Amino acid sequence: MKAITQHAFGGPEVLVVSEVDRPTPLPTEILVRVHAAGVNPVDWKTREGKGMAGVLGEPPFILGWDVSGVVEEVGFGVTTVKPGDEVYGMPWFPRAASAYAEYVTAPSRHFALKPANISHVEAAALPLAVLTAWQALVDTAHVEAGQRVLVHAAAGGVGHFAVQIAKAKGAYVIGTASAGKHEFLRSIGVDEVVDYKTTRFEDVVSDVDVVIDLVGGDNAVRSIKTLRPGGIVVAIPSGLQEGVAEAAEAAGVRSTPFLVEPDHAALTQIAALVTAGELRVAVEAVLPLADAGKAHELGEAGHSTGKIVLSVVD
Amino acid sequence: MKAITQHAFGGPEVLVVSEVDRPTPLPTEILVRVHAAGVNPVDWKTREGKGMAGVLGEPPFILGWDVSGVVEEVGFGVTTVKPGDEVYGMPWFPRAASAYAEYVTAPSRHFALKPANISHVEAAALPLAVLTAWQALVDTAHVEAGQRVLVHAAAGGVGHFAVQIAKAKGAYVIGTASAGKHEFLRSIGVDEVVDYKTTRFEDVVSDVDVVIDLVGGDNAVRSIKTLRPGGIVVAIPSGLQEGVAEAAEAAGVRSTPFLVEPDHAALTQIAALVTAGELRVAVEAVLPLADAGKAHELGEAGHSTGKIVLSVVD
Repeated sequence: MKAITQHAFGGPEVLVVSEVDRPTPLPTEILVRVHAAGVNPVDWKTREGKGMAGVLGEPPFILGWDVSGVVEEVGFGVTTVKPGDEVYGMPWFPRAASAYAEYVTAPSRHFALKPANISHVEAAALPLAVLTAWQALVDTAHVEAGQRVLVHAAAGGVGHFAVQIAKAKGAYVIGTASAGKHEFLRSIGVDEVVDYKTTRFEDVVSDVDVVIDLVGGDNAVRSIKTLRPGGIVVAIPSGLQEGVAEAAEAAGVRSTPFLVEPDHAALTQIAALVTAGELRVAVEAVLPLADAGKAHELGEAGHSTGKIVLSVVD
Repeated sequence: MKAITQHAFGGPEVLVVSEVDRPTPLPTEILVRVHAAGVNPVDWKTREGKGMAGVLGEPPFILGWDVSGVVEEVGFGVTTVKPGDEVYGMPWFPRAASAYAEYVTAPSRHFALKPANISHVEAAALPLAVLTAWQALVDTAHVEAGQRVLVHAAAGGVGHFAVQIAKAKGAYVIGTASAGKHEFLRSIGVDEVVDYKTTRFEDVVSDVDVVIDLVGGDNAVRSIKTLRPGGIVVAIPSGLQEGVAEAAEAAGVRSTPFLVEPDHAALTQIAALVTAGELRVAVEAVLPLADAGKAHELGEAGHSTGKIVLSVVD
């Protein structure tokens, strides 16, 4: 099968089209014909030798964790899906990467049935970013109706899902982004927008229960000032910067770094939100699989609204 | 750390106490101090070179998939548990085995919080067997209140959990076992018992919606006669014998082999059933970790009621 492989850490040019063996599903695993593969910041960080490179080890390897496709074959003992079913998922994160390819295998519960009302391209934009938002808000912060949630980089990949999940849970959502994205933020339900370029958010936002910080730098420490006593700042994906834990403790709030895991149950609940029209996917750009390097360049240029997706089947 | 390793396929004597490196949790993983490790039939089959040996590859390896213990350390990004929490789970099944040891690592969602009202020994008897029963009945057969469920080997490891889950879901449960175990079956809620030694079950059981077959041989084909049109026979763990699929199709019923997967959401729901007193664990024997070989001999001798567990921490 065709796959994008890299044989050294480096810039987008290390990503090359290769012919590799098609994987075979072990017991409990499914073989999925990839129709589209999502691109995430962790992909290009890992490509460079950062991100999850420490987990994957030295190249050569295939990158990518976001998949939407069709079940081609099921391994022994799989009963929840059958060949022909459309699925989406996040195979093996972070232990192994495999999505930039024509076929992937993983345990059936690394996937769930794809929402029927969206395309493979849209579904491939979901798993890593939407599970990050879900697990941060629901499993980590235990967000509740009526709470105030501050989402940084609210128009980005994880951010726009965090906004919509928080709204679906009944929260009041404050989102930061540059002015050009405020209309988009309002269209996905943000109650209050802050232009981080013209306003120090901590001067105008307060009494927050949950901060989702996708920015890093000094953003987490500054966010502590917006929290109520007992509130929590969840820092994704680069972890908490130096001094955050101490600053949080001194302020009587909680803080934690957070990293996403495969989660069949959450993917199933998220699919229901998508089907009900409560969660929309913003795809910014679609490129063919062979242009994975260009997709990384586009992503690294930054300041995007929504996700970049590789189309594997036309 | 101490672990039971094997360096060749063979009888119980290949299991030896070894000193191996303590594993380190990767991002999203937890390091668990194992207090007790459950023993399952798949363990001794794999030890012999059958079972999941094809997945694990050649020895040396550590056996075992059932763990109850205490979180010792969390890897980067884990937010759902913290050091000191009691957890139970089925790390890495079937991709890698690791439970016969003082410490294991796996993604946090291969575990869930242990029910507080049972011991580590009881909790270690749960994961593989209870998830098998749960995923077969709930995720595969979609059992509903009022349905008739036939559980073969109903007093065994998987069987006694299948009985109780089916009852918790409101089903009418028929269980097969030898006469000496009928009192036990009634104590866990079986509505109708059949002595398979004196009675051909298909002569006295009919109109069944779901058959859970843990016996193999010609049991699955014979079970087809007990099903209503559209009913299902789920064959665990040795898969369907030759001719079952054809016999099922001819009879207008469904049949499938089934194999269990790690499942945080199910473990959490099962823990709630245990805490509510709706699911009891039958432990037949507890041996020290060093006696893993003896535990296998005991299990292979067969006809047990309940599970065999290795105690790792006194």
